[in-house]
Amino acid sequence: MTTTEPDEDALTGRAHGVDRPTIAQIATEAKVSVPTVSKVLNGRPDVAAATRARVEAVIERYGYRRRRAPSSQGLIELVFHELDNAWAVQIMKGVEEVAGAARLGVVLTELGGSHRPRQEWLDDVLSRRPAGVILVQTDLDLAQRGQLEARAIPFVVVDTAGGQPPGVPVVGSANWAGGLAATRHLVGLGHTRIAVVSGPSDVLCSRARIDGYRSALEEAGYPVDPDLIRYGDFFVNGGYAHGMDLLDRPDRPTAIFAGSDFQALGVMRAAADLGLRIPQDLSIVGYDDVPVTEWITPRLTTVRQPLQEMAATAARMVLDLAHGRTLANPRIDLAIELVVRESTAPPPDLA
Amino acid sequence: MTTTEPDEDALTGRAHGVDRPTIAQIATEAKVSVPTVSKVLNGRPDVAAATRARVEAVIERYGYRRRRAPSSQGLIELVFHELDNAWAVQIMKGVEEVAGAARLGVVLTELGGSHRPRQEWLDDVLSRRPAGVILVQTDLDLAQRGQLEARAIPFVVVDTAGGQPPGVPVVGSANWAGGLAATRHLVGLGHTRIAVVSGPSDVLCSRARIDGYRSALEEAGYPVDPDLIRYGDFFVNGGYAHGMDLLDRPDRPTAIFAGSDFQALGVMRAAADLGLRIPQDLSIVGYDDVPVTEWITPRLTTVRQPLQEMAATAARMVLDLAHGRTLANPRIDLAIELVVRESTAPPPDLA
Repeated sequence: MTTTEPDEDALTGRAHGVDRPTIAQIATEAKVSVPTVSKVLNGRPDVAAATRARVEAVIERYGYRRRRAPSSQGLIELVFHELDNAWAVQIMKGVEEVAGAARLGVVLTELGGSHRPRQEWLDDVLSRRPAGVILVQTDLDLAQRGQLEARAIPFVVVDTAGGQPPGVPVVGSANWAGGLAATRHLVGLGHTRIAVVSGPSDVLCSRARIDGYRSALEEAGYPVDPDLIRYGDFFVNGGYAHGMDLLDRPDRPTAIFAGSDFQALGVMRAAADLGLRIPQDLSIVGYDDVPVTEWITPRLTTVRQPLQEMAATAARMVLDLAHGRTLANPRIDLAIELVVRESTAPPPDLA
Repeated sequence: MTTTEPDEDALTGRAHGVDRPTIAQIATEAKVSVPTVSKVLNGRPDVAAATRARVEAVIERYGYRRRRAPSSQGLIELVFHELDNAWAVQIMKGVEEVAGAARLGVVLTELGGSHRPRQEWLDDVLSRRPAGVILVQTDLDLAQRGQLEARAIPFVVVDTAGGQPPGVPVVGSANWAGGLAATRHLVGLGHTRIAVVSGPSDVLCSRARIDGYRSALEEAGYPVDPDLIRYGDFFVNGGYAHGMDLLDRPDRPTAIFAGSDFQALGVMRAAADLGLRIPQDLSIVGYDDVPVTEWITPRLTTVRQPLQEMAATAARMVLDLAHGRTLANPRIDLAIELVVRESTAPPPDLA
């Protein structure tokens, strides 16, 4: 398996479209042979770093694009920024479901460790020549996107945060609708003093969920108290800190929309520390519906983010792209669903 | 990448060891060409099924073994029976850590779905020619082990259950010591009436943990009450059912060693339903130390099974085998550790 595959564009020797260069033109311009350009495109390690950089520069300058990817090794890449969160398994199951049916192996990568710089990862991906790449909460920079595009390796982002640049195919979920549904549920139970602990303020989905919360309150004719709107970190500690601050005072809210299931766990801990019972003294709504929400006591009312379906959809999009199909909808949000369990009830004065 | 790689054994044309056949002898016996045998060994799909079966049969009959695997694609296979459990992420992190440092891609497979029969999976693995295979809670049958062995693809089992057949390299953990440590901790707090809810009785680790429990009681001079020894399912429901049965009676135990963290969550739910406070009325010890144990209220005292280290150790063993090294210790158990948190305290009569 060490032959250099002749590149189809080099063999046909013609450009497709007005400005589309052939691989032979790239070779001439970079002062290397056609097989060397092929090697660079195929991510082969046996090219000197300087030569490679020169070829990459010409590829980028000319905007060279392969028409289709070379014979794939039957792999699809699944890349997590961090494997720490409880979502990982659900996302993997969604990708496995689609990849398994297509007899593709799923190559799993975590980018969290500092022992694996990103360009190294991309080099490895290029050398594996996958059918496509699924990125979870991971942004490629422009140069990296260009390197994949030049090799006709399609990629799709599973995005729970929002804010991917235009032109990147994305599967997300309806964050604003999630904030609305969570808050409407609490309003419907009779709560009027409702706090929200969202994620970091610089993550778009945090803002979308808070805007949904605000709309539900305005719809009900309740005032929006800025002091009850908090930005956390999506993790247990953020929920605990804001929970203690919100609950340890006389005018405490009777309900908290916690923005993530982990923050909800943190708020539950704060409530326990303060001797507040859930849901009798305090109602809590989470977000995501990770498995733990069903295991704890009381079971958590939450907004279900369909992670497995989002991942399966992203995998199907990647396969469509790999087969040269155009995506009818390259940027979609899947619907959320309110799951009512045991952590929400009418406020104490109505119970 | 469609050339047939000449097999080193075919080229040297000699047997290594008295009975070791060459690939040429396999070809003659199976009445096919040498390249066809190579194709079968490399898992290439372009061999007729009948031909392939004939070659496989001769390979098995002659006990043919490659001396080393052909050039790897830079992949390591990680196979889960099911991705449903909360361990998956920790195991993946352990494998990623070692594979990432070695610049190997980790191919993830879940065998749970009926859409992916096992022989199909093995065919795909053979065609990917990985550096090695890590199996989590997964048993290969003898024929499948033979197919990997014939191709010099090493495999190691990450085994939390116990009971892998001899000759299979295994990384496990010290289950008996775990049962002992959990029960000693409860005895040390003053409990004398302690129940255990272990996993299924046909899983060896369940029995090992119960034996450790029994030893701790005997060491303390306490009677072992057979009615307090239960076999569950390792999941929340099993803990809940046995928890209700054990706790809803006058002579209830004051402590339960729950056998897994999920069963501990089920026991906690049963305690909540019965109005028992943890740890004031009931102490609970889990097993595994999955992340949720730190997020819940009260935080769970548990026995830490070092899943990430187990997986990393298995990955290092696979790489050693792939490099032709002999394993000094092909079957090892890593040590467990008791993690004391908030779910255990002295019994009510001593508090």
